[in-house]
Amino acid sequence: MPASPDILALLRRAAGADDVIGLAGGLPAETLLPREALAHAIATTTARSGSALQYGWAEGDPRLRAWIATRLAARGADVSPDDVIVTTGAQQALVLAAGAIRGRIAVGAETYPAAIDAFAVAGAHAVVSGVRTDYAIIGVHNPRGDQRREAPGEGATIADEAYAELRFDGRVPRPLLADARSRVWHIGTISKVICPGLRVGWLVPPRSARAAVIAAKSAADLQTASLSQAALVALLDELDYEAVVSRARSTYAARAAALAEAIRAHFPEGQFTEPDGGFTIWLELDDPCPTPRDEQALLAAAVDAGTSFDPGSMFRVDGATSPLALRLSFSHCAIDALGEAVRRLAIAVARWRART
Amino acid sequence: MPASPDILALLRRAAGADDVIGLAGGLPAETLLPREALAHAIATTTARSGSALQYGWAEGDPRLRAWIATRLAARGADVSPDDVIVTTGAQQALVLAAGAIRGRIAVGAETYPAAIDAFAVAGAHAVVSGVRTDYAIIGVHNPRGDQRREAPGEGATIADEAYAELRFDGRVPRPLLADARSRVWHIGTISKVICPGLRVGWLVPPRSARAAVIAAKSAADLQTASLSQAALVALLDELDYEAVVSRARSTYAARAAALAEAIRAHFPEGQFTEPDGGFTIWLELDDPCPTPRDEQALLAAAVDAGTSFDPGSMFRVDGATSPLALRLSFSHCAIDALGEAVRRLAIAVARWRART
Repeated sequence: MPASPDILALLRRAAGADDVIGLAGGLPAETLLPREALAHAIATTTARSGSALQYGWAEGDPRLRAWIATRLAARGADVSPDDVIVTTGAQQALVLAAGAIRGRIAVGAETYPAAIDAFAVAGAHAVVSGVRTDYAIIGVHNPRGDQRREAPGEGATIADEAYAELRFDGRVPRPLLADARSRVWHIGTISKVICPGLRVGWLVPPRSARAAVIAAKSAADLQTASLSQAALVALLDELDYEAVVSRARSTYAARAAALAEAIRAHFPEGQFTEPDGGFTIWLELDDPCPTPRDEQALLAAAVDAGTSFDPGSMFRVDGATSPLALRLSFSHCAIDALGEAVRRLAIAVARWRART
Repeated sequence: MPASPDILALLRRAAGADDVIGLAGGLPAETLLPREALAHAIATTTARSGSALQYGWAEGDPRLRAWIATRLAARGADVSPDDVIVTTGAQQALVLAAGAIRGRIAVGAETYPAAIDAFAVAGAHAVVSGVRTDYAIIGVHNPRGDQRREAPGEGATIADEAYAELRFDGRVPRPLLADARSRVWHIGTISKVICPGLRVGWLVPPRSARAAVIAAKSAADLQTASLSQAALVALLDELDYEAVVSRARSTYAARAAALAEAIRAHFPEGQFTEPDGGFTIWLELDDPCPTPRDEQALLAAAVDAGTSFDPGSMFRVDGATSPLALRLSFSHCAIDALGEAVRRLAIAVARWRART
């Protein structure tokens, strides 16, 4: 469920403090942002082309849609550029898909919190399913970080590939829509591999829904920023995308290993699965944590000790704080600082355990 | 009401054809887009700063919010940076406001079509009011192009200032929220004066609604593109904004005069008000136009003759095609081409009148 105002205030305080080594959020590594290449691509695009600064059509830049379709087709999906709708990040794709599906959308026991928000704002609502989910997080699970593949349902299915390319072993699974084109709503984004600041994602809806989705997209914000799309097209023209993904995988794999090692050292009793990709480790502790107040106290202790994490309740539809879970992000923290962050977290947990 | 698929197809065909001198759409003049300055601002921002490429908070860049608040405060409104929420264009601001207000939103007999769409997608719906409107188009009316001030209602009011600065006489009215802070949802955008391709607008909601609106904004697309916001901040630092607005006013005033002159020459029987600002002239003709089919035939004739317009039905909640009205946009057409566009339109109307 959405984080409470108090939790949000703590996370913001942590994010804004220079002396906090944060383990919250899903931010990509600063060192991986293609700053120079993007600056060059944008400067060229903006100065030359008409389209980067002007209005464009709701479905997005045809060159970008072609790039997306080509990559999906190479993975076995029957997708043409006309099937792709560029969205304002994967978040808007979640809203558009849920707005078309409506009703109940089954999700895992832990799931991506902003998907719960997206479904609610779209007039749908997330319900927990023990078995099959209508919202499937593909390739790398968020928040759990492992490759558990949520078994998709038989009906309309939202396949969220935000982290799919960031499996450390490079085995990007065959896209769900390759085998169920007419009921899968495929979602992707460049936020995790290239950069989030452009706000470019995409949705491949079932073909029968295309026209309605484009109308809904237009009603939502007319179109995704022309500048972001043009910049991305120019960047992808010059960039060796596979090399970028490959570098991201090895960077994050190394950070994941460092974080796992620090967790084993400081939380020998903690339960977690070594991540198969993505940005995060899901750490469960045996401590009782019956109320949101308890969980919030732990986060406050962490921020006081100079670190942060995403509380487990955020990832659960009912906001349960038990079993106590902490999503720890290794993606945005310098590899050398991860050990210190976990050391601080251990201090915070000890203080919290000793609370009266 | 939303344009029909056939109307949309015609408008797209016209927009994509090199030999069509289009009078449809609300695009700013190509010559006014600050191409060089923006390219420079973006290149600097992207290469240097962390924030342009990374995630940011849902409410938007504090520097941009400060600029917006300062301008509103200078016009008499009690607005601080914390009151401002950056949105993905004014379109998203319309959705967020309507999503909070819900229910019926009274609009004028002719109104901005995408507002009708925004209200619908947000779970509200537009109804026509003869007297007072809950959706008030400020300063310059769209589509009518004159300064008729829709008398706002007594309840929650959405004040859309998209074109307010583009009054040719430079008299930007006192913002509605200066006198009714607790019930006005103020909406602005940089799309008309600076450039639409960034997709940056803003919403100043009543203070009591702020937290809920930020949550809804976050659910919709997490945040407006960091790149667009950072680029705009850098641009506004270097740009003489008043000079930009002033140049835009004189450019559009000259085009408006040229279009009005051409209309008087080719449609002496046509009824229109000389525009007081903005991008468009609303032309009404006496011809009967009983059905959408008739209106569509006129647009098809126009495209065949090498021009285009926005059909009047788009601007009416019930989609009425009578009285026959054409919104003619002077903003995006070179001033020397406006006469030829209207000459072509007159040919199309003559052919259409002669249809069997």
